[in-house]
Formats: sequence, structure tokens, C-alpha cells
Amino acid sequence: MNITLAQAENAIKAAKQKATAIDTKMNIAIVDAGANLVAFVRMDGAWLGSLDIAIKKAKTARYFDMNTGIIGELSQPGGSLYNIEHSNGGLITFPGGVPIKNDNDEIIGAIGVSGSSVENDHAVAEAGATSL
Amino acid sequence: MNITLAQAENAIKAAKQKATAIDTKMNIAIVDAGANLVAFVRMDGAWLGSLDIAIKKAKTARYFDMNTGIIGELSQPGGSLYNIEHSNGGLITFPGGVPIKNDNDEIIGAIGVSGSSVENDHAVAEAGATSL
Amino acid sequence: MNITLAQAENAIKAAKQKATAIDTKMNIAIVDAGANLVAFVRMDGAWLGSLDIAIKKAKTARYFDMNTGIIGELSQPGGSLYNIEHSNGGLITFPGGVPIKNDNDEIIGAIGVSGSSVENDHAVAEAGATSL
Amino acid sequence: MNITLAQAENAIKAAKQKATAIDTKMNIAIVDAGANLVAFVRMDGAWLGSLDIAIKKAKTARYFDMNTGIIGELSQPGGSLYNIEHSNGGLITFPGGVPIKNDNDEIIGAIGVSGSSVENDHAVAEAGATSL
Repeated sequence: MNITLAQAENAIKAAKQKATAIDTKMNIAIVDAGANLVAFVRMDGAWLGSLDIAIKKAKTARYFDMNTGIIGELSQPGGSLYNIEHSNGGLITFPGGVPIKNDNDEIIGAIGVSGSSVENDHAVAEAGATSL
Repeated sequence: MNITLAQAENAIKAAKQKATAIDTKMNIAIVDAGANLVAFVRMDGAWLGSLDIAIKKAKTARYFDMNTGIIGELSQPGGSLYNIEHSNGGLITFPGGVPIKNDNDEIIGAIGVSGSSVENDHAVAEAGATSL
Repeated sequence: MNITLAQAENAIKAAKQKATAIDTKMNIAIVDAGANLVAFVRMDGAWLGSLDIAIKKAKTARYFDMNTGIIGELSQPGGSLYNIEHSNGGLITFPGGVPIKNDNDEIIGAIGVSGSSVENDHAVAEAGATSL
Repeated sequence: MNITLAQAENAIKAAKQKATAIDTKMNIAIVDAGANLVAFVRMDGAWLGSLDIAIKKAKTARYFDMNTGIIGELSQPGGSLYNIEHSNGGLITFPGGVPIKNDNDEIIGAIGVSGSSVENDHAVAEAGATSL
């Protein structure tokens, strides 16, 4: 099972609405089950450096089928996954990446959001992921 | 002057309509005046390898403010720009990348399209670029 | 639809048998529908530099859903896809990469083989791809 | 002395059996004495992001001829090898990489495993490394 472009565009639409509702400007990326980019938008005025971060968050969430922030808790100094960020051409392991599931609870892709605090990034990603 | 997300989304919409009209499945990327990605879509069933090519075509068109195919004519063996593709993390210099201008004829971004023959790629990119 | 590890291992077994039958030593890689590595073997004494080439051939075949040699015919100087090899972190466009299909003729992955002449590489890849 | 493909395949078989026995889905990589990939498998449903990690663990174990977890103890903030992960195109220094020795106690390669907790990753790598 793989996310369709129509589903990805719906997720981006929902994420943009949430971003606007909380007065933020976001980069929003959607990857498919193979961790390859399906859709992306950068809202006007959003941080330029967040472009790559949004894409890496989406990939990281699909690479390990979990929210990116969970990995970040384990990759701290002394943690069991310390410096895992050096793999896969660079991971981003703070919040803002969330897997996307279909009605059968199968992971079909992931969303990554970057442009504000990690709390806001996660809230916008969650809004996108749950819009399906 | 810089392309807005709304303009980029309109260009993608026009490009998708053209792609569907000529029965192709395309990857479509829009970059801004700084050659940074603004929006991207991969149509269902489009070649996976065209993801990177569409983005590189858009960047190449903005890097040099001309259609990508023009650069490709100069980058042939013996040509004045032989193997320019080695620069900028990899250029794509065959047709499918087109600058996007505003009403004052200023370049505000570029579109890159990949997924079919280079003639089709260029036609879809042109449809997107002229939609503004 | 995605290739399973059992299918990938069968394809590698068939490819190894063909490689031995024609007295060659090969690197053999299988990627899934998302172009991510599923299985790989390097036969004893096979060229070390063919390791990366076999993986790139498999990816290239899945990226564009065709035999790699077809792309190489179009990427020559003056060809419509000249220097496409600069995309996707490096393509290999000479023969030896072949898509793998299931019984419904859907592409579920690809095989890449490197270690001898391109004719031999292709013959071994074909043996693997058709073993399913 | 260098690991043979037959030995690598035996190590992978033993590692897969252990992975199944403890109900995990693993990426398993074997490198030779030159730290170059010999064999790899990704079990169905294993994390996609663990593909690169398994290979990097195997390389790291052979690069320094020790279990990866030992290096990770020294690469912490303030440690003598702080951020050694930046070398060699990216190291992975948490458990799951183990050198492979022959009967004369000579190192002939290494195994890297990723897909579960680091304790499980190490247990599966150990099962593969000691199977020879």
C-alpha cells in the first residue's frame, strides 16, 4: 500500500490550514512507503533551511515507522542510538515527522514539517497525518 | 521579485492538466528566484528516477536563466560548456526546465518536468511556466 | 506490490547459477519497488568496483522501469538524455539492470548485475529477473 | 585471509534464524576484510532506515576491528573519540556490529545488524559472527 498524490495533497492542505491557524509558516513534505518524495510545499516566508529539514523529517519517520521525536530521545549522548543521525544521508530526529496510515492501520508514507518550534512543527504534521 | 506559493501551485496545476491531456505521468518541481524548491508533485505512477531530474531541471533553468535544453546543446563533447553537468551537485541539461517570468518579464523562478520524452517534458513545463 | 526477500533470494540464486554456467564472477543486487536494496551478493573474486555498479544498475532499472541499456542508448553525446547519469546520486546506464515483474506484469523491483562484459551482465540479470 | 561468500551466506542464515527466534525483522550486512560489502538481506517488513545502518555497522566493526558499541562508549561528549561518526562517510557506533574471525582468530570480515533494540541487534550479529 502506497500513498496516492491525491491523499498527499489532502494532507498538505490540512497541514497548511493548521499552520495558518496557529500563525506559522511551514515547509511541508510527504514521502511514500518507499521514503521517496511525493509532494512538497514551502509557504511564503517560511525558513529556507527548513526545506531540507522537512524532507528529512518525513523520510526519518518512514525509515523507522515512528514519530521523529521518539528517535531523538534515544539518540542523545549516552542514549542507545547516539548519533544515528549520521546514517541515511542525514536524519532529523526532533519532532515534526509523523507516519501516515491508511484505514487498515498500514503505514503508506509519512509527513515532515519544519518552520517553527518543534511543538508547532509536530502539531502541523499531526494535522496532516490525521487528515486521511 | 520572487514566485509565491500560490503562483507555484497554479503552475503545477496547469502542468498537471497538460500532462494528463497528453497522457503522461510527470514529476513537476518549482523553484524560486533563489533556486530553492517551492513546490513539488509526483503524479501516481510517474518514474521514480524523474523525481530528482525534475528538481535538477528546475534548478538548472534558474541557475542560468534559460531553458535547460539550450545548455545541453553547449555541453556536448567539444562544446563550450562541455560537462557543465558536474557543477552544482549535478545539473540536468536536456529539455524540461523553463524559467518562470512575471508580468514585467522578470524571472521569479523556474519549473522542471520529467517523466516522458524530452519533448513532452518541455511541453508540460511550458504549460506551467506560461500559466501565470 | 513489492518483491519479498524470498523472491529476491530466488532471483539471486538463479543469477548465480547463470553466472557460474558462463564462467563469470558477479556482483548481484536486488531492489524493491521503492528502489531500496533488498538483497546483495558478491561472488568470490568478483570485481570490487562492480559492487556499486550492480546496486546502481538495479536502482536505475527501477527508477525508469526499463532495462538500463535502453537509457544508455539515449544518454550518448547528442542523445535526448545526454548526461542523465548525473541525477539520483549517479546512474549506470549500460546493460545489466532489468526490472522484475510479478505474474500480473506489475514491476515489483529490479536486479542489477556487474562483473563481466555488459552482454554477460545482462544475461545474468535476465536469468535472475525471469526466475520468478 | 578474507571471508568467502559461502561463509557470509552461512552467517546471514544463522543471523536470520536468530532474528526469527526472537521475533524481530532485521537488515543484515556482511563486509569482507577490506570493509567492502559481500552480502546483504533485508527481512520483509524490516525498517527501511536500518538498511544503511546495518551496512555502516558492519563497516565500522571492520574499520576498527571491534564491536561497534565499544567505539560508541568513546565517542560520547568529552570522550576520547568524540564525534568520530563524522569520518568514513558516516560511522554507526552503537551495538550491532561485530567482527568475524576464522579458526586462527584472524579477522576476515564483519557483520552489521539493525532493525530492533540495540541489544537484539547485537544478539543477532553475534549469532551470525559465531556461526563460522
